[in-house]
This record gives sequence, C-alpha cells and structure tokens, in this order.
Amino acid sequence: MYAYDFSSTAAVGKDLLGGKGHGLATMTTLGLPVPPGFTLTTQACLEHLAQGALPDGVWDDTRSALGLLEARSERAFGGTAGTPLLLSVRSGSKFSMPGMMDTVLDLGMNDAVHAALAAWSGSEHFAWDAYRRFVQTYAKVVLHVDEARFQRVLTDLRDRRGVANDADLTVADLEEATGLFQRIVAESGGSLPADPLEQLRTAIVAVFESWNNKRAREYRRLHDIAEDLGTACNVQMMVFGNLGDDSGTGVCFTRDPATGEATPYGDYLANAQGEDVVAGIRRTMDLAGLAGRHPDRHGELLEVMAKLEQHYQDMCDIEFTIEENRLWILQTRVGKRTATAAVRMAVEMVDEGLIDRDDALRRVDAASLEQMLHPSLKSPIGATPIASGLNASPGAACGRVVFSSDQAVEVAADGTPVVLVRWETTPDDIHGMAVAEGILTSHGGRTSHAAVVARGMGTPAVTGVGGLVVDEEERRFTAGGTVVTEGETITLDGTTGNVYLGELPLARPEFSPELERLLGWADEVRTLGVRANADDGRAASEAVKWGAEGIGLARTEHMFMGERLPIVRNVILGKDVQQSLDDLYLAQVADFEDLLTAMDDRPVVVRLLDPPLHEFLPSLLDLMAERTALEAAGQGTAPVDELIAAVHRLEETNPMMGLRGVRLGIVHPDLYRIQVRAAIEAVGRRRKAGGHPHLELMIPLVSTVRELAPMRVMIDEETQRAGVERIPVGTMIEIPRAALTAADLAQHVDFFSFGTNDLTQMTYGISRDDAQDAFLNTYLHDGLLASDPFVTLDVEGVGRLVESATEEGRKVRPELEVGICGEHGGDPATIAFCHRIGMTYVSCSPLRVPIARLAAAQAALGAGSDTGTV
Amino acid sequence: MYAYDFSSTAAVGKDLLGGKGHGLATMTTLGLPVPPGFTLTTQACLEHLAQGALPDGVWDDTRSALGLLEARSERAFGGTAGTPLLLSVRSGSKFSMPGMMDTVLDLGMNDAVHAALAAWSGSEHFAWDAYRRFVQTYAKVVLHVDEARFQRVLTDLRDRRGVANDADLTVADLEEATGLFQRIVAESGGSLPADPLEQLRTAIVAVFESWNNKRAREYRRLHDIAEDLGTACNVQMMVFGNLGDDSGTGVCFTRDPATGEATPYGDYLANAQGEDVVAGIRRTMDLAGLAGRHPDRHGELLEVMAKLEQHYQDMCDIEFTIEENRLWILQTRVGKRTATAAVRMAVEMVDEGLIDRDDALRRVDAASLEQMLHPSLKSPIGATPIASGLNASPGAACGRVVFSSDQAVEVAADGTPVVLVRWETTPDDIHGMAVAEGILTSHGGRTSHAAVVARGMGTPAVTGVGGLVVDEEERRFTAGGTVVTEGETITLDGTTGNVYLGELPLARPEFSPELERLLGWADEVRTLGVRANADDGRAASEAVKWGAEGIGLARTEHMFMGERLPIVRNVILGKDVQQSLDDLYLAQVADFEDLLTAMDDRPVVVRLLDPPLHEFLPSLLDLMAERTALEAAGQGTAPVDELIAAVHRLEETNPMMGLRGVRLGIVHPDLYRIQVRAAIEAVGRRRKAGGHPHLELMIPLVSTVRELAPMRVMIDEETQRAGVERIPVGTMIEIPRAALTAADLAQHVDFFSFGTNDLTQMTYGISRDDAQDAFLNTYLHDGLLASDPFVTLDVEGVGRLVESATEEGRKVRPELEVGICGEHGGDPATIAFCHRIGMTYVSCSPLRVPIARLAAAQAALGAGSDTGTV
Repeated sequence: MYAYDFSSTAAVGKDLLGGKGHGLATMTTLGLPVPPGFTLTTQACLEHLAQGALPDGVWDDTRSALGLLEARSERAFGGTAGTPLLLSVRSGSKFSMPGMMDTVLDLGMNDAVHAALAAWSGSEHFAWDAYRRFVQTYAKVVLHVDEARFQRVLTDLRDRRGVANDADLTVADLEEATGLFQRIVAESGGSLPADPLEQLRTAIVAVFESWNNKRAREYRRLHDIAEDLGTACNVQMMVFGNLGDDSGTGVCFTRDPATGEATPYGDYLANAQGEDVVAGIRRTMDLAGLAGRHPDRHGELLEVMAKLEQHYQDMCDIEFTIEENRLWILQTRVGKRTATAAVRMAVEMVDEGLIDRDDALRRVDAASLEQMLHPSLKSPIGATPIASGLNASPGAACGRVVFSSDQAVEVAADGTPVVLVRWETTPDDIHGMAVAEGILTSHGGRTSHAAVVARGMGTPAVTGVGGLVVDEEERRFTAGGTVVTEGETITLDGTTGNVYLGELPLARPEFSPELERLLGWADEVRTLGVRANADDGRAASEAVKWGAEGIGLARTEHMFMGERLPIVRNVILGKDVQQSLDDLYLAQVADFEDLLTAMDDRPVVVRLLDPPLHEFLPSLLDLMAERTALEAAGQGTAPVDELIAAVHRLEETNPMMGLRGVRLGIVHPDLYRIQVRAAIEAVGRRRKAGGHPHLELMIPLVSTVRELAPMRVMIDEETQRAGVERIPVGTMIEIPRAALTAADLAQHVDFFSFGTNDLTQMTYGISRDDAQDAFLNTYLHDGLLASDPFVTLDVEGVGRLVESATEEGRKVRPELEVGICGEHGGDPATIAFCHRIGMTYVSCSPLRVPIARLAAAQAALGAGSDTGTV
Repeated sequence: MYAYDFSSTAAVGKDLLGGKGHGLATMTTLGLPVPPGFTLTTQACLEHLAQGALPDGVWDDTRSALGLLEARSERAFGGTAGTPLLLSVRSGSKFSMPGMMDTVLDLGMNDAVHAALAAWSGSEHFAWDAYRRFVQTYAKVVLHVDEARFQRVLTDLRDRRGVANDADLTVADLEEATGLFQRIVAESGGSLPADPLEQLRTAIVAVFESWNNKRAREYRRLHDIAEDLGTACNVQMMVFGNLGDDSGTGVCFTRDPATGEATPYGDYLANAQGEDVVAGIRRTMDLAGLAGRHPDRHGELLEVMAKLEQHYQDMCDIEFTIEENRLWILQTRVGKRTATAAVRMAVEMVDEGLIDRDDALRRVDAASLEQMLHPSLKSPIGATPIASGLNASPGAACGRVVFSSDQAVEVAADGTPVVLVRWETTPDDIHGMAVAEGILTSHGGRTSHAAVVARGMGTPAVTGVGGLVVDEEERRFTAGGTVVTEGETITLDGTTGNVYLGELPLARPEFSPELERLLGWADEVRTLGVRANADDGRAASEAVKWGAEGIGLARTEHMFMGERLPIVRNVILGKDVQQSLDDLYLAQVADFEDLLTAMDDRPVVVRLLDPPLHEFLPSLLDLMAERTALEAAGQGTAPVDELIAAVHRLEETNPMMGLRGVRLGIVHPDLYRIQVRAAIEAVGRRRKAGGHPHLELMIPLVSTVRELAPMRVMIDEETQRAGVERIPVGTMIEIPRAALTAADLAQHVDFFSFGTNDLTQMTYGISRDDAQDAFLNTYLHDGLLASDPFVTLDVEGVGRLVESATEEGRKVRPELEVGICGEHGGDPATIAFCHRIGMTYVSCSPLRVPIARLAAAQAALGAGSDTGTV
C-alpha cells in the first residue's frame, strides 16, 4: 500500500509517512481541523527513484486516495461546477529539512477550473492569484524554470502599480502575471499540462525527485541524515489564506523556540498563503495581533496548541491557515529550538510533570549545548545600536561584513570572522551561513529561512531589521544614517536583536539555572567520568566551573615557551645545559603547583614533553632573513648561524612521526627527568600547604614497551628519591602499534589515555595539518568520508584499535583506567562509543565538559537525543 | 650440576655447555686426543650474573671437577713436583662470538710452579714464556689492565734484541718481561694472586662477566644473538705448542671456508701458542708445510678431520696443538664459511651422499647469498696489482683509504665508500669494519680477526699482504714502490687477494652452477611465490634472470620524471592539460610495453601514481635562488613565481601522509585514468605482437573502501571501453586503517599487496627518512628495538595487522591473492612470517630474488638455516 488517507492510523509511523504526513494523520485522529488529504509513502519514493519512473501501483493507489479525498472534501478535482478541489503537493521526509525540498500549490488548475474558482469565491482577484501561484510553483518545481524570472515579473508589476505587496496588485495585474508566467514556461521549453491528473502525476514525480536535489543532499550531509530514507509526498486539499481580510496564514510554537519560555509564540500574516510567511517577504503580526483580529480563532488555536503539546509531550511547531474566519491546521511537528530553549523546556516539563528526568536528558542534543556557550556582549555595553531587529538566534558575534555566501567562504577561508548580511537568505546560501560568525537580514521573521537555519547551526542571527537597506550589488547596507560597506566590522547580538558598528567586547558564557539542574541529573545517570584538557591553573579553574572531575591531559609544552624559550634553546644547543635545566625545573614547579591547586582533590594527568624540539626554534625563513639583515648591517652572524645549524639538524620531513614524545625522553633523558622532578616537588609543596594533590604522569608517543619500561623505572626512582609514594603512570595510546601491543604496555602502567588526534592521523594516514584543503574537504563533500574523522571518532578503523587495546590492556590489568584525551573526547557520538566499550573517562576542552556530561548520561540511558533540538 | 667433565655425554647440549664445551665433549667421546678438562655451564654464568657473585655451588662443583682433571692428566694443579697442571680458562657461548670474550692461559702459575715447569720442560725459555703469558692474559682479562702496555714492553725488548718474534727473545728477556709485567700490574693497582685456586676462581668470574663487555654486546647486536644466553667456561689442561721446534699450533678446516672446495685447508705456526695464530702476528705455513715438517701428525690430523666431518656431516673448523710431536685437538665447531663456500659445500655434500637436499637447503643462510651477489672485477682487468695478499673474504670493492675505524665511520657517514687499511684489526674495530666497503691488512692469515669478521659481514677483504707497510700515524701505506695516502682510492679483490690503485670497473655477479642447482631444489620445495619489484624493462629482465616469477610492484613514478617532468609540471600548473595528458599517455604506453615484454607470460602488477605532486616540482630553495639570480640579471621572474606559488600550494607538513596515492586519483582523476588507459593499450599492443601480457593494476595508499570502489569502477569502465577482458585489480595495504578494514576492501579487489615500508612507518609512527639519525640508531644500539623494523618486519605490531588483514580479506574472498612488496619482501625472517600466514607471494628487489627463493624454501621446511654460515 502506497497511499494512506490522513484518517488512517498514524501508527503507520514516520518511516513511511514522513514527519509531515505522520503529523497530519496524528492531528486528524485527534479531531483537529485538518484539511483532508493523503500521504504517498517514502517507499513509493524509493521505488520511483530506483525504477526511474512512477510505479503503476503508486499511481493506482493515488487515484483511489484522490477519490476518497474528493468525497471527504465535497469538492471535485478538475471540477468546473460547484467547489473545485485544488491541492497542495508537498514533500515530507522522516527528518525535517526546512525549505530543502519542493512543494506545488493550487494544483488542479486550468482555465476552466479558474473560472469555477472565481465563481465559487466571488473573487477574480483570488482566482487569478491562485492561478499565477500554481503556474509559478509548478513551473519552478516540476519544470525547473528559474524562479527569479517570475519574481522579476512581479517586481515590475508592483513597481508599475507603486505597491509593496503582491496582494495589492489588481485583478488585471494578476491576469497579466499569469499570462506572462505561461509565456515564460513556454519560452523555457516546458509544457504545463491542462489535465489536473497529469499535473498531479508530474508533481508527485517532482517531489520524489527533489529528494536528490543539490540543496537537499547538502543539508543531509551537514545534518548527518541518511541518503536512503526518501521523502513521502503529501497531497492535501488547498485552503486559502488569501481569500481576503478575514483569511490569513501563520506559524506558531507552543513555547518560545528561542528562549524556551512556556508561552505560545507565533507569526500571522493576513490575506496570505503559507509560503509568504516562511519566505519572510512581508512583515508579520504576533499572536497578540491575531487575538485582536480573530479572538475566537486565536482561542481555538490556543486549544489546539495545548492539545498537541499534551499529545507530543513536547513543544510543537504548527502551521495554520484561516480561511474566511475558519481555522485549519496544515502541519505540526515537534518544534526546533535553540539549545537554551531545549534545556529550559526539558527542565520545566519535568517540573510540570509532563516528562520524567530521563526524558529530559534525552531531549537535549548534547552537541547543541555548545550554542549556550556562545559568548554574549559584555555589559555594560558601551555603544548604541545602529539597528534593531528580531532576536532570531541567540549569542553575540563580531565579524567583517560580507554580502554574498561565496564572499563569506572566501574571506573566512583564512580564519577571518565574517557576518553575512542579506536581504533574506535562501537555501542556496547554506555554504555561506555555515562559515559566518553571525547572520543579519533585513527581512524575514523568526521563522524565516535565515532564522531557522541559523538556530540549526547555532550561529547568532538578527532578522527582520526594519529600516535596514541592503544593497547587495554595491556591497553596502544602510541602517538609519549609517552606511556600512563590505569589509567593515559589525557586532550583532542575536539574544536581543541589536546590531552595533565595530567590534564590541564579548563576555564568556555562564550556566543557566536550568542547565545546571539538567547537568546535575546527567551526573546522577552517567557512569563515564568527565575530565578536561587544561594546561594551566586558569584553564583548570574554568574546567572545574563547568564540572570537570579532573584533568585528563595537561600538556607541558607551553611551559617551554614564552620567556623560557631562550633557556630551552640553550638546552637544545647544548649551552649552559645544567643551569638551563635548573631554571626550567624551578619554573615548572610553579606551573605544576598552579594546576594542582586549581584541581585540588581531583586527578591531574600531566603529559611529559611531546612536540619535536625544532618547534622551540625559530623558522628557517625568519633566521635567513635575520642573517641577511645582519650581514647588510655589517654585523657578525655567528649566533644566527648556530641557530640555523640547529634548525637544519632538527629538521624533519615528517615531524609528526619524528623525534618527539617519549623518544625525546630516551634521547634527552634529562628533559624528562627534570619534568618529573618538578612535578613531584610540586606535589610535596601542595601537601605541605595542606592541599590534596593527585598527580598522575603520562608518557606520550609510545610505540614499544621497551620505551615505556625505562620511563616507569625513572619515575619510580624519582619518587623514591623524593621520598613520596608511588605516582600513577600512564601511557598515551596514539600510535597504532601501541594499541596493537596494549597487553605489553599494560604491564607497566596504571592507565591508558587514547590520543585520538594522532591515532587518527596515523591509522588513517592523514596529516591533519595538510589534509583539509588538499583532499579532506573534497572527501567529505563527495561522501568518501561519512564524517570528519578528526571530529567524530572513526569507529570502524581507529575505534577498532581503541576497543581492542582497551580489552587487551584490561585482560592483563583489570583495574587499568582507560581514558580518551583527543579532541574527540567532547564529541557526543564518540562519547557514546567510549561508554559502550567501558572506558573510565573522557577528557575534553573545558567548554565541552557540559556537552560531555550530558552525552555520557545519554549514552548511559542507551540513547542519543531523540527530538528536534537544532 | 654446574660442571661437566669433557668425558660426560655431549648430550647435555650446547645450551648449557656452549659451542666450545659441546665440541670438546663430542671429540672426547669420539676418542680424539683432547686435553682433559671440564665445562662450567651457561646456567652457572647466568646465576653468577644475577647474584653478582660466584654461587657457592658453582665453586664446589669446580673443585670436584678439578680433582678429576688432576687425576686424568696425572698432573698437579699448583704442583711444584712432577708435571705441574696449567689450565686454559676459556669462554664459549652457544653461538660462536670470535674474539669477543676473554680467555686466560697458563693459569695455575706462580714462582714455585714456574720453577717446576722449568724443571719438567727442561726449558727456562719456555717456563718464562708461559709465566709472562699468564701474567699478560690474567692481567688483561681479570684485572682489566690495558693490553697495550704489555705489548709495548715486548716491542721494546724485541727492538733491543733486534728480532721480529717474541719466540726469538732470550730467557733473560722473558724473565725481564715477566718482571716488568708484574710491575705494570702492581702500578695499575691490581693484585695477582699467587694461589692457583684463587687464580682459577677469579678467572672464571672474569670469563662469566666478559659476556657483558662492550664488544660482546655489540657483536650480539650485530648478529641478533639473544642477551640472556650467557657463556659457559671451559677449564682445560694446557698443552704447549711453544715447547720448541717440534711443537706448534694451528687451525684447520675440513674444506676451504672461502671457496667451499672439498680439500682440507689450514694454517700452522711452529713453536707458538694458539693465540699467535689467531692474532695473525706471525706468518703461518699451510697444511702442505705441516706435512713436510710433521708427516705423521699431518696424517693423524687428516684422519681427525675426516672423522669430525663425518660426525658433524658438515665442514669443521679445528684448533690443534702439537706438543713435542704429539697431536692435541683443542677445539672444533662447524666452521664458518662464505656464502659461496656454503652453497658449494651443501650441493657437493648432497652429491657425496653426506646429506640430503632438504639438509642442503637448511645449510645456507639465505641472507648470506647477498655476498655472492657482490660485484667482481670486470675482466679483462686493465691494471697491475700494487700488492697481493690472502683472498680472505671474496668480492671486489673500491673506496677511499682510511686508517682508523673512527675515520671510516666519519668518512662513510655521507655515503662515501671507504676501504679500511690496518696492520691488523682487533675487536675494537667492529664499527669501522661495519661501514667499510673493503678491508685490507698487512698481517693476519685467513683465520685472523680481519678475515673472520669480514667474511661474517660479507665484506671483501685481503689480509696478510707481504711487503705492505702500514703507517697508521702518518696515515699512509707503502706497497712495493707505491705510497698511498689517506683519501686516495684503491680497489681490492677479496676473491684473488689483489690490490689495485684507483677505481676499477666492477662487474655484476652471475649465478654459480652450485647456486643454480640449490635454488632449483628450493623452487621445488617452496610454496610461496617470489616476484620482483621492478620499474622498467631492464630491471624486469634482470629479475627474470634471478628467477622472479613476475613483478609484484612496478612503480610508475619514474615515468613522470626526466624529460617528461616539464609535461607533468604543466598538468600540475593547469597549463595545456589535455595536450600534456596525451603526451604522458603515449610515453607510458611504451613504458608498459617494455615491462610486459620483459615479463611475458608472468604477472605484472603496476601501481598507479603514488608520490605527492610536489615531488615533481623543484625545491623552494632552488627556486628562490633562481628568482634572486633572475632579478639580479634584470630579467622577469613570472615563470619562477608561478612555480614558487605551486610549490607553496602543494607544500605539506607531513607529506608522507598527505595528498598522494589514491588521493591523487580522487582529486585529479585524469592522472589515474590516463595511466590505466596507457596500461590497457600496452596490453593490446603486446597481444597483437603475439605476446602473453598479464597486467594487474594496483591502487596505492587506500584508507577507506570508499576510495577504492570508484577506482575499481573506473578501471572496469576503461577495460570495457577498450574491449579487453577484466583486469585484476588490487589494493596496497599500507595504511593501518586499510588493514583494519580489510574485509570491506576485499569485496572490491582481486589481491592485496602489503606495502610494509609505509605500513611500518604509520603503525610505528616512525618517519623513516628522519628517524635513522634522530633516534633509530640509538634505539637499536640500546636494545630498545630488537631489529630495524624497516629491515625485518615487526611481527608483534605491524605483523599483527598483516596477519589479521590477510585472514579477514580471505574470509570475504577466499581466492584473494596476498603479497608483500615492501623492502621486507627480501628479508628471510619476514619471508618465514609471510609463509606462516599463508601469503601468495613476496616481491623484492631483483638482486634479492635468490635470497627470497631460498628463504621461502627454508620456511616451507619449517626452519631457517641452522649452521655456521656467516
């Protein structure tokens, strides 16, 4: 069976009906006023795509369902007497992909039907408007005629008439538009069938095929949606928001999708069809405005909202139309929301008794918490906004102004922050939005494309800024009296909707009370520990604030940088070695004390020196330039020559796999020994000061047990020498061979810590520094990689090593602690994997600790998030 | 039990008795005239080393065994009446380590014993000579006094007396020497015990501890001998070759150890002790000379040789002494030999019925065949030798003359070939000998240190050159009238013993008839295929000559080099791309035809382009210099600037893991496609010409199946397009992830080929180009690596990936062919591993094909070589 009437049970499920179809069926079952219609299943789509032609069975089922629809609606499809049945034909896949796929409206139209429609509605204006909308959407979706050509016609007509809205065009204008549209279709070589059934068949085919259009594929790639789901196709009776002033259309949310506040929220546009709201072309009114205009319908809508939220036990996003003062519900789904809103809703719904704590934990997409950790403007704000609009996506952002998505990508390529400024964004802007720090549009409500997508990406956005004139051609915008040209810097605050000239100082984020409660619940549920990667006392304090239970990785490289660099260079050049080592020792004692103080009573894993020594020397090009300058000045070049020689000596073709990590510890044993001594001394001092230091030492880049064993011996020697108790020692597992020989390594250590950055580089044979531009982006784009292996752990390859090493290490030493300290440690999908294989903890950057806490809880609950958090 | 009398059964075995002790026990059992004695086991050594003191049980057993020895010899240890019993105390581990460990002679000496000895022998000369030898060897071995101090005394005495040999010193000289020796001992703070038992105890301790001296450890490292074997200690009655002209000492081999010829061979020195022969200080006579001097003893010795060879079923190396016309056999072992000799002996012994073919195959160390593939002098030799000596180690070599081992290491560091010229080498010269192309000494026979070690290393050597005067201080040597100073080039021929001035042309080696027969037997036994890595027709023909059954790896990089480089650069720079690709296509068709012609009827695996593109561009430094020059000349820099930009664009931090291999095929699909087209075209042309081409195509650097699948599709497209049958396609497995996902990869290919060079780099995280000097040498030296993982496959780590990938690939595709094409493919230990895991073939450089054939046979026989091939 390929077609399900909306009155069929919704139990058929989203897989077959798609999200939209399932929502329509659910609402119909709940007795809400849904225009009748039916859904063609995703199965029908997949079979169509596989065969390259609409299967006969699908069309047969469509004809049957259409018959039922005519009966229910008491309207006739293609009918020229009584009330003609017009249809909307809309895509709808399992997961919402806003604006990505296609819709045909007012389908079933031809000259005869147009006449009947005019007779039924008593409005030639309405009938021609419906006709031109049909031609416009059919031509665009089915015949792939360039949409801009139709917009140009409408713009010319509005200009001629001196009006701003299409609704203000005259009957003659609309008739002319319809004729011009038909001519454009003919010129494009397309053919617009007069037969309504043929219109329906071709529209269904176009909707199915829109699953594979470029935008849709790009969206799925960005949102990790599977390619083989297909889309359903919803065929539904048209109701008309454009029948006059007692008609209109709107979108509402049962709670505020930006803040999570438990009050309904919405946009309404009188005498309009739904696309006019979403496209953001006209300024909308809010629900209060609707209540003033249609008090009964407003009350009815509130009841619908309450019923839907109760049913879904979640915030719903609803599209509705008022046709001659009668309310119709066109669509619902669990609404997308900002992370802030998701957290607040989840916690408040627990308080309301709507859901339980486990549900609340599952409700929030852990990765989305990063949004809440966006910076805000530092108060007091010492500047006056140059403009103000809708707070469409929260957070503050600064960047250079750009006016096209291509430009955004170009400027952002070298890391320059950009703010994308547009009249309104379209699905073709995805690539520019993805790289922008912030998005600013003059048009569009909080449900406009720009707003929805920005929230999805966690990018701050301000939309619908009245008085903002964007001139994309001249690459400038005007706000009030201020002209801002491309390349100037602006700051926008998506939390308030304000826009400022120049760069304002941003403040670091704090926990909201709701997030604090939610993460408290997460801590009760999770079994996986969460530590932070922090290299100094300041970062460690920050990590504690976000809930880190210790430090999983304190790098010691920075202790060799800055003012200590000359000392380190002396060691490398073999000058005053003992004195230099002594100086480094003292400096490091203080560093370690800071760390242990900030993390008092929590474990602190200190990794011994890791990078190649040449990182502590200047670059050859700089030295050459210096040498040339000295020569020109007639000065001696001996000291520079010495450095040049050292750089040459330490130069490596592939430094990633060179003399670094434990190899330094073997070749320059003093360097490691002073680090160990300094760390032990810091422990002693902390203890004397009444602290509770928990130092652990970690050896990087081990590839064979024969490197590890002498380091363990050296550390034990140093503890004995200092008269302190044994210090836990661990090894990084970041070279494939370390993972392969984990059973040997486990005999000498107390813990493993997977350095999944390097482990991924070597297991995949990809040099991260080089690969992004050289081929990784191509690979991700072409689907040769499902996801960036440096973001989400490659479970099939790298994960296999991680899992077997964990198992084999524990077989030898059951109490072995196992953690991960690569950047993957803050990635929810990776955290689920770490939980599954029984790791002891993950360690991630301080700001990702909240994400890790929640993701670990979700992993313990056996599920990732399951709702529409964006 | 720690001590075994030589008359105990030899079944105790070499592990406990060591090679020397086992040989003495065997010969005693065979009834040969062996001076009585006993062996302290390696177990005693290990317990001593572990405890740091001689265990009581060992000393108790020594005392008992000594009692038995006194009874058997009818001499008294420390006895001052009758015949005093003097002892030799000699090390002897399971594997021969010539000259590496220590020996004390004439032990049991003091003033009283000296007097008794003089009385017994009737020779003060002999008695003082024995006394000074005792003091000298005891002081050196037990008290670690510098040997050179004693040598200086002897040299002074000889000079004063105007004689060349110690044997020509007078009684008074020897008495004076003994006194001076004792004074040197006293000055060194050492104490020479008068008590013979104390002498024995301390000598045993010193022998045990010599296991761990620096020379011994270096030797074990070079020869892959385990550290935990320990040495046995052989205590044996001294017999005296220095009792006068009817005494003497010698070394003999049952066959010629250099050529393998089946005639006994030996050196004899009258009125001397064994050390005088080995040290090469005096000129020896050959067995014919011995027959003239002692016809009966010569006959007796031939009988001993025949008996021993029959017993060991192998060539034996025998040390003997004639004491007052009575023959004593002091030691035997299976003799070391050159590879040429090993092969000839093995084949001839099969012909003689002494051993069977499997024995013969086991007899030859496969790796040693490399020696036979040493070059020889091209004939006719257009030069006259400046000197002529013993053909101590075969093969010809050219190089700069150096006079010390340190100098040899220094000069050879940048790849300059050196010939080490010495009066004679000592165990302290190991490091210099290891880097020398050839070794030339003025003294020493074919059993001297230089000869034995050079044969072990497969380094050509000429020793005992009469008339060669080496002045190590002045860094020059004189041969006849010719003076050669450091840095001049000489050529030596270890096969003939000739030395030439300047660089002579060398000829490539050919199979000997014996090697051809042996390898024929190997081919019958082995199950593992042997292919060659060859990139062009010439190399392929060479490979066929050595017995390759196909090409396992034909790299295509060189096809982009040389005169084609400008065309390749055009492709990289995007200029005239289509024309350039067409040019490359045509050039490659010809290359592939050459390969397929040379390997007609055999498989040829062509690997598509692998290296990063920047390898086809000039270096940045060169370009910068060129730019500076152009600017100085006032010329335009645009073309150079373009190249500089390209180099910058393609620059990579870690090129090994960058844009290369299949990644090029994805990012620049045309490059791979023209290679495939060219290869297919070559197949067509060969077939038209009546050939039988067997092309296989291989994709390098695959890390995910999603890279491989489109390449397979592309190749199949191209075969269909050309109308030829399906071509076998394989993937390199050289990235750990490829090995980890082998089951996925196997679904798309016909064969796997392990690129163990890169696989080792990435699995070990070691960049081969950088690591050698940076840390790999240190690691090898300190035993952190058991062997160089780029020479012998790391079975524990890399091998684990190779094994699991083979298994998992075959599970998916049972007919999957699996090969190895890294440089490990020619290493016998790796070949044994490849055989064990059921690989289809190994592929190695053409010259290593014979080694691989033999090693594969040995693997099939379930054993590596088991004899003393060096």
